[in-house]
Amino acid sequence: MSGKLTGKVYLVGAGPGDPDLLTVKAHRLIRRAGVILHDDLVPAAILALAGPKAEATNVGKRCGRKGITQAEINARMIESARRGLEVVRLKSGDPGIFGRLAEEIDALETAGVPFEVVPGITAGIAAAASLGVSLTDRRKSSHVIIVSGHRAPKNAPEEKTDWKSLAREDATLVVYMPGNDFIIVREELLAAGLDPAIPAVIVSHATAPCQQHRSTTLGALNALPRMESPAVLLIGRSLDRAHGRSKSDAASLAFDEAELILSSL
Amino acid sequence: MSGKLTGKVYLVGAGPGDPDLLTVKAHRLIRRAGVILHDDLVPAAILALAGPKAEATNVGKRCGRKGITQAEINARMIESARRGLEVVRLKSGDPGIFGRLAEEIDALETAGVPFEVVPGITAGIAAAASLGVSLTDRRKSSHVIIVSGHRAPKNAPEEKTDWKSLAREDATLVVYMPGNDFIIVREELLAAGLDPAIPAVIVSHATAPCQQHRSTTLGALNALPRMESPAVLLIGRSLDRAHGRSKSDAASLAFDEAELILSSL
Repeated sequence: MSGKLTGKVYLVGAGPGDPDLLTVKAHRLIRRAGVILHDDLVPAAILALAGPKAEATNVGKRCGRKGITQAEINARMIESARRGLEVVRLKSGDPGIFGRLAEEIDALETAGVPFEVVPGITAGIAAAASLGVSLTDRRKSSHVIIVSGHRAPKNAPEEKTDWKSLAREDATLVVYMPGNDFIIVREELLAAGLDPAIPAVIVSHATAPCQQHRSTTLGALNALPRMESPAVLLIGRSLDRAHGRSKSDAASLAFDEAELILSSL
Repeated sequence: MSGKLTGKVYLVGAGPGDPDLLTVKAHRLIRRAGVILHDDLVPAAILALAGPKAEATNVGKRCGRKGITQAEINARMIESARRGLEVVRLKSGDPGIFGRLAEEIDALETAGVPFEVVPGITAGIAAAASLGVSLTDRRKSSHVIIVSGHRAPKNAPEEKTDWKSLAREDATLVVYMPGNDFIIVREELLAAGLDPAIPAVIVSHATAPCQQHRSTTLGALNALPRMESPAVLLIGRSLDRAHGRSKSDAASLAFDEAELILSSL
């Protein structure tokens, strides 16, 4: 695809799912890339932007799949760039937030391959926007804490997130990969003294046509039904008007009891 | 501009400055808006996308300027939407991060005006990308804490950021509006036990042609020269290879001593 003599790797954020939330730059880079190496979560509507001769490969590592290793992904990026191609390494959301970007940059630097990071809209920020709420509110929430529910790679000893240390009345907590079991996060945040009436919202498939969300409170978090991943869990006072004004309205199932608790705050 | 009978307000993130980092959706909304109410920090290159008949107004509230009040901004949005126009309320970065979004949503909801929030690339995420670093690194940094150096509105009693409570070895601290005096943040983070060798980078005008950055360490933070605002200060171990690989390279002034400390880590 590229006539250039030296290739380059673009580590690009694909945003949360809606192709309209790609950056203008990401949109252009995808259209002209010679090679696209993408994660599982990048939707078909975004991959469809690629040119007809682009080699697009899913290098995702989701559970159950016979895995492509990180070393293989690194090798593919480097080899394609050395063929003189423009490589787009396409990661859902923003590449610098839970995207293993650091490891890929290390490999590219060691190999002497030119690269550039192109930021994307990260899922937590997209989820808040889709609900019509602000992550900060100078009257209520002056910090945003982004944390992952799942921290450890499979082969490493499980590192637990220390929820107690993250409990702040003046923060909005944005939890990526929250899983479906909120017993521990609820227990630890309450034990650290957070008000059980603090709003909590889980958003599944943020900005995708199948987006769903449920609004509840920290105290009622354990009663949330199972939500499909990818999901993001938001906890904080700035969410107290998260009634889902976007297209998620239509997709959201009824969850009357939790909504009732919320609207009575 | 709009032939529709009912108007709507789009609360849109303009991203960090580079028009290429607008979302595709923001780009389209700006082009077709009837009314654009924008902050000071939105650059001319983005405003130039507006159609020839759009009414574009700077409603920024920077220091020194005879201020437009928040109530006046709210009134203008509501009045324009009631004239049947598409209103783009254009905020730098992401509207939900230190953008007074909550107050504007409250006003629109009270007035019964339809609205939608369109997320944008926030400055801290853009700054990290421009330096070619990841905000998280599963080997070093599992949290991102977004906080503002300046918290209080002018008329309210000054609320101090409690830096000690934010000191975490496993987090990347992203400080918006950090000002130019880092004595207190340095002192409090060191007093809380953070390693003085932790990398710190300040990025001014992230992604703009005039972007500059300085890399140093937490221990040497007080020796940083004055940087132009808007700026963002990043502190954390995931920044240890922030050598400014983007166009900021060319713009960055020499700051050899701090770079030396950094590269010896």
